[in-house]
Amino acid sequence: MAGQIIKLTDFAAQMTAHLKSIIDDNKMKLSISSIMVGENEASKSYFNGIRKKAADFGIDAKCEILPADTTEEQLLEQIKRLNADPSCYGIMMQMPLPKHINAKNVFDRINYCKDIDGMNIVNQGYLFSGEPLLIPATAWAVQLFLEYFSARFDYPLTGKTVTIIGRSNTVGKPAAHLLLQKDMTVNICHSKTVNAEEICRQSDVVVAACGVPKMVKASWLKPGAVVADVGIHRTDDGKLCGDVDADDAVQNASYITAVPGGIGSLTSTLLLANAVKAYFLIEKQQLMKMDFTEMK
Amino acid sequence: MAGQIIKLTDFAAQMTAHLKSIIDDNKMKLSISSIMVGENEASKSYFNGIRKKAADFGIDAKCEILPADTTEEQLLEQIKRLNADPSCYGIMMQMPLPKHINAKNVFDRINYCKDIDGMNIVNQGYLFSGEPLLIPATAWAVQLFLEYFSARFDYPLTGKTVTIIGRSNTVGKPAAHLLLQKDMTVNICHSKTVNAEEICRQSDVVVAACGVPKMVKASWLKPGAVVADVGIHRTDDGKLCGDVDADDAVQNASYITAVPGGIGSLTSTLLLANAVKAYFLIEKQQLMKMDFTEMK
Repeated sequence: MAGQIIKLTDFAAQMTAHLKSIIDDNKMKLSISSIMVGENEASKSYFNGIRKKAADFGIDAKCEILPADTTEEQLLEQIKRLNADPSCYGIMMQMPLPKHINAKNVFDRINYCKDIDGMNIVNQGYLFSGEPLLIPATAWAVQLFLEYFSARFDYPLTGKTVTIIGRSNTVGKPAAHLLLQKDMTVNICHSKTVNAEEICRQSDVVVAACGVPKMVKASWLKPGAVVADVGIHRTDDGKLCGDVDADDAVQNASYITAVPGGIGSLTSTLLLANAVKAYFLIEKQQLMKMDFTEMK
Repeated sequence: MAGQIIKLTDFAAQMTAHLKSIIDDNKMKLSISSIMVGENEASKSYFNGIRKKAADFGIDAKCEILPADTTEEQLLEQIKRLNADPSCYGIMMQMPLPKHINAKNVFDRINYCKDIDGMNIVNQGYLFSGEPLLIPATAWAVQLFLEYFSARFDYPLTGKTVTIIGRSNTVGKPAAHLLLQKDMTVNICHSKTVNAEEICRQSDVVVAACGVPKMVKASWLKPGAVVADVGIHRTDDGKLCGDVDADDAVQNASYITAVPGGIGSLTSTLLLANAVKAYFLIEKQQLMKMDFTEMK
């Protein structure tokens, strides 16, 4: 029996409402800053999406575009200034950075309490240790989708096997830690994996974060598998697709997140949720749990 | 065909000789300090083993035993003093700590360059990010054994599947990251895993770090599997055994590390190797790679 390709529109709306209520209840005045080195149309377009979403929450999203020949020292000065700015609760570095700048070095100089992209070494350490603070939004979205799905469809995550395709620091690795914390048995595949298809086929849940359009097909899935599709690509005909060939895969899967309208529709809200977490970390020295899955 | 239970005596001796040559060549004078809160016979016995090994390298291993009612503030003061002590290249906190002390808080206050147990949030972050600095010795031993094995038996690790049984911050999780860096496909099982036996049976390599004596038997293994046994337990008859029932498992495995004389025989040397890495990090601002597997 064919499964369903599910839009997460309702969940995204609930998440937005929940976050808005936290911001309003606490009368929070937040601003976040995005730093771009050199002009980049894709980064600008990404930032404009964030700014629009931020406006819905009354969050002021600023963008600082520095010249392409900005030195690492100058960039670090800018970060130092934002670290010290009491109105700023989020610092985002837009990638890519010019080659003369060491990106990792830059991330690690952002105050980890303002590191809403979750790329700082301290946030990576907390994630590793099992006590995450600020988490990369996409990995967090995968976790929250699975918790939402679990609650809604009475599908306990404990003991379920999950195969994550992809081992990036922004998605694959953080998702592995988050799902391990949920007591899932976690398998991590990547470009060097032999027979990822067979490995996925043994898994209850598949998280596709491989960056290859439509790679995961029905033959990759155990009947009834739950699939979170992290990819987003534009095909030649101008349509969007994910890392999963959803129309084919749905013949075997029970549920697949849609592209667009799936995991990607949660991430900008979660990026801003990180700014709210940053506020609580900085102003109240407390970790705001934000259990979005308790909202139903 | 039955496999072999292999002692790592030769590898341990080579490792020791390699480390000694680095220390001698650089005329290094190192001391490390272990802090114990309250008397604990097991910790003392562990420390004495470290001290004896350290003496072989000319490393001065000191032990500071603080009263059981030491406050967290007093302990943090002691750590601050050792962080500032230029002769100290390693700080170890002996566990367990009394309940009134937050162990994680204490680990995170150790200068990460002196954190030779690899338990500090910054070292955990570096491990996560794929650029490890100081690594917990046992997980490092597992990686080095597999690299040694790979070189010696022409057994490429790239693309091999490994199941790690255990998800501790000291062994399971760091081993997962280290082996992911070696391009292995990594599966992490734990106490909530359903049918760990079947999952292991599909794996080329098994790392047993579950803390349960003799849990892994022949039926858990694919024919020809390579097994790293991290456990060490004393049985009722006074003998030592691991997490693998080696006499049974060897019927299916090709190679299993012995207990004693296996992974555990590498760890004290690697703890001291971390002190040598600490020296290079602090004095030369450089990461000493120490590729023990290039020694053969």
